[in-house]
Amino acid sequence: MSVTAVRYFVGDQTVPALPDLDRGLAYGDGLFETVRAHQGRMHWWPAHWQRLQRGAAMLRITLPDERIVLAEATRLLDGGNVVLKLVVTRGSGGRGYSPVQACVPNWTLSTHPLPPSPAAGLSLRWCDTRLALQPALAGIKHCNRLEQVLARGEWDDPAIDEGLVCSSEGDVVSATAANVFILRQGAWSTPQVDRCGVAGVCRAWALKALPAREARLAVTDVEAADAVFLCNGVRGILPVARLGARTWQPHLQVVALQHRLAAEHPAFATEVS
Amino acid sequence: MSVTAVRYFVGDQTVPALPDLDRGLAYGDGLFETVRAHQGRMHWWPAHWQRLQRGAAMLRITLPDERIVLAEATRLLDGGNVVLKLVVTRGSGGRGYSPVQACVPNWTLSTHPLPPSPAAGLSLRWCDTRLALQPALAGIKHCNRLEQVLARGEWDDPAIDEGLVCSSEGDVVSATAANVFILRQGAWSTPQVDRCGVAGVCRAWALKALPAREARLAVTDVEAADAVFLCNGVRGILPVARLGARTWQPHLQVVALQHRLAAEHPAFATEVS
Repeated sequence: MSVTAVRYFVGDQTVPALPDLDRGLAYGDGLFETVRAHQGRMHWWPAHWQRLQRGAAMLRITLPDERIVLAEATRLLDGGNVVLKLVVTRGSGGRGYSPVQACVPNWTLSTHPLPPSPAAGLSLRWCDTRLALQPALAGIKHCNRLEQVLARGEWDDPAIDEGLVCSSEGDVVSATAANVFILRQGAWSTPQVDRCGVAGVCRAWALKALPAREARLAVTDVEAADAVFLCNGVRGILPVARLGARTWQPHLQVVALQHRLAAEHPAFATEVS
Repeated sequence: MSVTAVRYFVGDQTVPALPDLDRGLAYGDGLFETVRAHQGRMHWWPAHWQRLQRGAAMLRITLPDERIVLAEATRLLDGGNVVLKLVVTRGSGGRGYSPVQACVPNWTLSTHPLPPSPAAGLSLRWCDTRLALQPALAGIKHCNRLEQVLARGEWDDPAIDEGLVCSSEGDVVSATAANVFILRQGAWSTPQVDRCGVAGVCRAWALKALPAREARLAVTDVEAADAVFLCNGVRGILPVARLGARTWQPHLQVVALQHRLAAEHPAFATEVS
């Protein structure tokens, strides 16, 4: 299945289109998840839903019934190997920032083709766009993503796969659409996401699997690393081969982590040789 | 006209609903304006459109043809005394932050009832929510407004009209949906909006009319002020009577500014006694 399918819902009802005055459209007042599906099943669904619940608690957004979302998603997936995207907004609520009028969420499901497998290591660049420090929104996958759009818009060279982004204080945070891990002096670490950035589902898996620690990382920490990988719930573990002029050879520990992920998550089993 | 009407467009075409995979819904990847209309005419339309153009340049969003937007807006206004809201998004562009695929904007028009006239002075509170410092998005009226939603969600006491919000560094920035001006030692000032906040249309008018200067303002500057008012393009000049325990009597200079606005902008002529 490569054609995108989109469905719209209000609470537990199907609707033909996004309702008028949706607050996601108005203010980015919503949350989203992108979930890798293999043969119609979403192995990491519980972790995605838990992150959605954390976001909904922080923003005081009412979530739809998980059973209905999962049933509709499974129907839309139709056994396919695709990416499912779920967007949940606070609902429709007139003009004005006050969230109290909107209490029945609008939500959409869409399916998208799988991204290409990471054949070789990724080529990265540094982005000039900085991520603002906002603890009230950090860690969750909310729909205010203009910073990521600006960062991703900095390059259109297809030879560059991703960009690393720093906070306004200069700490490394993540790639535009993935978390980052580095190996230095025998220890793995990944940036904290308590002031900006997203707490990725694959990041949480890798933190335990390696194990790794959360830390404040400087640009020089990444450039001096012995190995670097990106990760997200859709693409899994992505070895980094190049960052500007810096290059890395494939690293045994990253290959081992890819194999471990392949053993645990069936969608990634076909991508490891 | 009190019932909300909503229209959707793609480029220069009318469509029945928001198109699938709209980037405004996905990422808040858009801009908006709320414009006061009097007898179907929008006196400050040029200033609103200029701010939209500034935002579009910063975000590299393609705007629809202004003549078409204005013609459709005028038709929707139908001679009424209402608020017109325009949302322009980057368009529809699949999954992923890269903005290059989307180049035909989606846009919506909606009309909303006028807010109540500011009979007496407003009662304000301080919000706990802080605005993050992001110069790349400051000043423009983009659709990433979760900070404002969080700030406005801090109270539901109808006796409180608005909340003042500070930046993460503690400077006063604005109200949740209005700019703020203060009079101290005979001089008017309003916060700079170069790191966060919105450069309001009525703010620009008041900056010239008073005149006032842009400055970094501390909480204590506001509390020690001889007069305070809020302003925005929909509600005009809004005298402040109370901020927590601090109260102000009506100030002649604020009343004079209201009368000057009433003389220049017909929508506000009916609201001044």
